[in-house]
Amino acid sequence: MKTRKIAIMGFGTVGGGAYDILTANREYIRNTQGIDIEVRSILDRNSAPLSARGADVSLFCSSADELAGDPEIELVIETMGGVEPARSFIIKMLEHGKSVVTANKELLAKHWCELEPIAKAHGCGLFFEASCVGGVPIIRALGESFQGDKVRAIYGIINGTTNYILSKMSKEGCDYADALKEAQALGYAEFDPTSDVEGFDAAYKLSILGSLAFHTCLPYGRIYREGITKVTARDILNAHDLGYEIKLLAIGKRDGNSIEARVHPVFVPKDHPLASVSGAFNAVYLNGDFVGDLMFYGAGAGAHPTGSAIVSDVITALGGKKKYCDFDNCGKLDGSMELIGDFVSGYYICVTVDDKTGVLSRISTILSDNGVSIKSALQRAENNDAATVVFLTHSANEHSVMHSLQSIAKLADVRSIDSMIRVL
Amino acid sequence: MKTRKIAIMGFGTVGGGAYDILTANREYIRNTQGIDIEVRSILDRNSAPLSARGADVSLFCSSADELAGDPEIELVIETMGGVEPARSFIIKMLEHGKSVVTANKELLAKHWCELEPIAKAHGCGLFFEASCVGGVPIIRALGESFQGDKVRAIYGIINGTTNYILSKMSKEGCDYADALKEAQALGYAEFDPTSDVEGFDAAYKLSILGSLAFHTCLPYGRIYREGITKVTARDILNAHDLGYEIKLLAIGKRDGNSIEARVHPVFVPKDHPLASVSGAFNAVYLNGDFVGDLMFYGAGAGAHPTGSAIVSDVITALGGKKKYCDFDNCGKLDGSMELIGDFVSGYYICVTVDDKTGVLSRISTILSDNGVSIKSALQRAENNDAATVVFLTHSANEHSVMHSLQSIAKLADVRSIDSMIRVL
Repeated sequence: MKTRKIAIMGFGTVGGGAYDILTANREYIRNTQGIDIEVRSILDRNSAPLSARGADVSLFCSSADELAGDPEIELVIETMGGVEPARSFIIKMLEHGKSVVTANKELLAKHWCELEPIAKAHGCGLFFEASCVGGVPIIRALGESFQGDKVRAIYGIINGTTNYILSKMSKEGCDYADALKEAQALGYAEFDPTSDVEGFDAAYKLSILGSLAFHTCLPYGRIYREGITKVTARDILNAHDLGYEIKLLAIGKRDGNSIEARVHPVFVPKDHPLASVSGAFNAVYLNGDFVGDLMFYGAGAGAHPTGSAIVSDVITALGGKKKYCDFDNCGKLDGSMELIGDFVSGYYICVTVDDKTGVLSRISTILSDNGVSIKSALQRAENNDAATVVFLTHSANEHSVMHSLQSIAKLADVRSIDSMIRVL
Repeated sequence: MKTRKIAIMGFGTVGGGAYDILTANREYIRNTQGIDIEVRSILDRNSAPLSARGADVSLFCSSADELAGDPEIELVIETMGGVEPARSFIIKMLEHGKSVVTANKELLAKHWCELEPIAKAHGCGLFFEASCVGGVPIIRALGESFQGDKVRAIYGIINGTTNYILSKMSKEGCDYADALKEAQALGYAEFDPTSDVEGFDAAYKLSILGSLAFHTCLPYGRIYREGITKVTARDILNAHDLGYEIKLLAIGKRDGNSIEARVHPVFVPKDHPLASVSGAFNAVYLNGDFVGDLMFYGAGAGAHPTGSAIVSDVITALGGKKKYCDFDNCGKLDGSMELIGDFVSGYYICVTVDDKTGVLSRISTILSDNGVSIKSALQRAENNDAATVVFLTHSANEHSVMHSLQSIAKLADVRSIDSMIRVL
């Protein structure tokens, strides 16, 4: 059996995880997949990460040009992260006829339309199962399963950091700031958590997943995005009282030429399969016009789950497969498609008011005047002659709810609009 | 674009479902997959099912020989069910160079090892995503995702009928017989429900899924099988009190050369993702050595979910793919593998005893003497000077528990051993 030689660019957590699997299960992969894979080179800034992981330091390589010029290497794993130099290095490898397996969601969300034609022109594969939802084979499923179905909607819990934080808030009743601190201490959140907690990471992934699901480019920049930093311990308590969990969802919908794409916190009913996806686990729930509802669940990040997705891509790529999306509208929304900003949803609204007769009625009237129908309301007395009013609405238009909130904020006896969270 | 012509053998629920999708989404499939698929012939005993579904009656064909002899048909969908004549017809089609897409789990579990070499010899594909778990793409995932992982265990809720019955018992507190009657009235259970409720159907599927997961033939006949007919309303109540749901699980495990394969009711902890898989939904939960835990969830049966899996296979097959398992040990357990009958599990045991001093102690002593450690026990007074004793054990060997139960049954103050259900 011919040994197939590959390289790894970026030997951090995920690159190291892939290396572990390729090393530990090399014989197993040879026996079950009929492919013998050898890591021939590891590119990084220095060889310290190799020593730290117990990898053979003689594999160390410091030059992408050297890697690109090695004719024996037929495939390169990119686990550097970020846009540059990952983008330039990937282009270099593709131009030298090497297939690329990447875990880089930011790069893909921003430069897929640039990279795919280069891969195609050089007869190379460009694989990215590891870019979304760790070891969960959702990219493969969107490309090669239920192909006869029009996917109507996807709902993803696709960021492990925010799901860890929200799960912790839900379990322990703590505030966002405390949950974030613990997540940082445990390595679930980065020192600068912006990309995760503000929903950028989820939006990158939704751009990739939505493009595959809807067979049209869903540009990252057009996705509505709202993070979890404003979710309070009180919101979580209210959610529990009403029978919900709060999750950061990435939502994509397509109905004919209309598309919705948004990332924001959502009240998820407790009996919905997504409600029990806790901690660092991730899941993608989707609906097809014939297959109905499906859910894919698993570890959303981590060295070995993500490494597993990379190794799966390596085996697939070395098996000779190439698959391109060939969007006509690469990098931008198709001219015939309409992005729906005024989508329909249920809403949870929490308002602090003066504890006076008639205030609930005045707020209800504004909602009603804007065509927003109330499903349930509860009022709780607080200190300082204040009261908290909590509403759940029936399905309503986003713009009508926003307009209502502006009017409610102007009422004399309304002290503050504390929260507005959409309901699944 | 060249039109690709296919046929359907067996125009019942599932065959009709596939036809619906191929008809309704023909243009969509053409646009997104680049394949134009036309159903050219439908084989059945008579044309009534075609008329009933509004299918073009001119497609009716009554002869498998005629179908096999039509050079324009390059692929045949088999949705007849049962072993014969499905087996003979499939062989005929393969021998005439036509790829086959089948939903027939019984046939596959019993004759995979016969059919695959015939397909291979004639350069045809043999696809069976629809044979297990309806529209959930678990066959594709086991073959083409996490290939670098050694799958250590799979746990499947893979029979919709039993999950419907158990969910109903759990929700309404009714007895098995009543839940079965309603399932039959609603079409979720057949007039003769044996294949579902006695676990045969789940065992067929476990044979297929386990063989793929463990890369070795897991013969259907070697699977331990126990149905749900003995699960009582009291068992469900006890399960709830202890924090569990009862599910019929198909369990496969591999550790080196040791294999476990069994289908039986299981106490599933309420916070396990499988516990919330209710009604006619199915799920496969699995663990790989690097990817960790994954779960695949969706509708386990039904015309359109199963039809969706068939259409996915048709598109894949027409795309030119062929994939064979090539087990050395086809049809039987590999000589180097050991099937573990004395597996390890937790146990729930429910016993009716005379309500006398010392009986709990006598039972506990027997369990302890057999090395079975008790996790929790509760005793409830009943009418007629009787009491119910419920035990949950820590992990113990199956044979030790069985041996204990034989001894417990012989105790003078034990009236009956009412239930023994394994715990996840």
